[in-house]
Amino acid sequence: MISKAKVKHLKALQVKKYRKEQQCFVIEGAKSVVELLQSEFEVAWVAGTASFITLNERLLQQKSPEWVVATEPELIAAGSFQTNDGAIAIARMKENNAPPAHQHNLILALDDIRDPGNLGTIIRTADWYGIQHIVASAETADVYNAKVLSATMGSFSRVNVFYTNLIEFISHYQGPVFGAFMDGEDVHEVKFPKGGLLVIGNEANGISSAVEKLITQKITIPRIGGAESLNAAIATGILLDVITQSKK
Amino acid sequence: MISKAKVKHLKALQVKKYRKEQQCFVIEGAKSVVELLQSEFEVAWVAGTASFITLNERLLQQKSPEWVVATEPELIAAGSFQTNDGAIAIARMKENNAPPAHQHNLILALDDIRDPGNLGTIIRTADWYGIQHIVASAETADVYNAKVLSATMGSFSRVNVFYTNLIEFISHYQGPVFGAFMDGEDVHEVKFPKGGLLVIGNEANGISSAVEKLITQKITIPRIGGAESLNAAIATGILLDVITQSKK
Repeated sequence: MISKAKVKHLKALQVKKYRKEQQCFVIEGAKSVVELLQSEFEVAWVAGTASFITLNERLLQQKSPEWVVATEPELIAAGSFQTNDGAIAIARMKENNAPPAHQHNLILALDDIRDPGNLGTIIRTADWYGIQHIVASAETADVYNAKVLSATMGSFSRVNVFYTNLIEFISHYQGPVFGAFMDGEDVHEVKFPKGGLLVIGNEANGISSAVEKLITQKITIPRIGGAESLNAAIATGILLDVITQSKK
Repeated sequence: MISKAKVKHLKALQVKKYRKEQQCFVIEGAKSVVELLQSEFEVAWVAGTASFITLNERLLQQKSPEWVVATEPELIAAGSFQTNDGAIAIARMKENNAPPAHQHNLILALDDIRDPGNLGTIIRTADWYGIQHIVASAETADVYNAKVLSATMGSFSRVNVFYTNLIEFISHYQGPVFGAFMDGEDVHEVKFPKGGLLVIGNEANGISSAVEKLITQKITIPRIGGAESLNAAIATGILLDVITQSKK
């Protein structure tokens, strides 16, 4: 059973300010909690259905100092979603660490991705293409938001998101800076280097003018039909696929 | 001002069953309503802010038999979203028409895409790549759902979505049927013909086993990192980009 005090704590952690204070966050859903238990995150507490606990007992013993059995209605009441298929957990946030200076692989840079679903999907897509580091502007959605974590489908445990002043970060970045615009070079014609920074713009406004000044190569996904633009996460997926292929 | 009876009608149209009965649907937001007015859809009624009406008066005169001025709070109260930047409209559904028999371009086939945001984003992405026809299983989300229409960012007016028994449709389809699986041929190595059917699987379960039997060529988006799968809309975007390039 989940105590009343714990439910109160879980609810409080739905608020970003409180998460920052406590340096803790909540993970909901059986798959996400298993990914958490298999990750480097420090786990504080887990509640799961009897079958979840039985199935993951060894992992829990290794990784979680405390766990309780709960019913599905209890899990739902304690969380932020309308369903929960087996577990909820509290874990400690990682430190907000910049990518290593000698990062030779591609880094994604997010210029105000505000939609939690988009951010989560971008993290999941980055993980698919082996991207380990994302640099996000301060206005980008919080990776520890439950909707973001859920949309990552477990990839939150493998991709590091560093929040910073994006303009300052790019100004100090040594290497090519790519950004998608309507008037760039056809992305399929570009020969990409091993590393570099790929900037993804805000959903409504694209890449901001201050960041645009720091782009060293404008690229374009050619359009055939009538849509005005692509969704930011879709553009990320297409660009990462093309860039990956270009390096082969 | 929007009458009480009209608000009631608008609210009723949020329910799929009522939309089907009335053969009408609701469009919210200035951009979407402008796309509607510029499309082939038959418009029944529009409400807009004074500035929206002034800005689009000629379009309204040409296309809408009836329109009223409303305040933003009225537009929000009449709609299903928490914000509205200028307009709401009622339009007639198009007939549920199959793609023309001699369709030589690629057709997308959706095998139970249930998330409205995903469906809307898939329609928007299809429109970007010039896809004009989507065939959707009966379990796929309703294109006339407000969340789907909003996520299409106006592309609902250019892409035809035909709901049908997908298994029957594919069984009768003359041409190659592509579907993404973990064990298919690297999509970048496939030489795609001009036409064909590209099947996109359900978010959680992928392509169903009944549909899998009808796939003539399994394709794969190569994975480098740790994510188990890609979001259905992301996979659609990557596949459409690769297929488009392959035909050049």
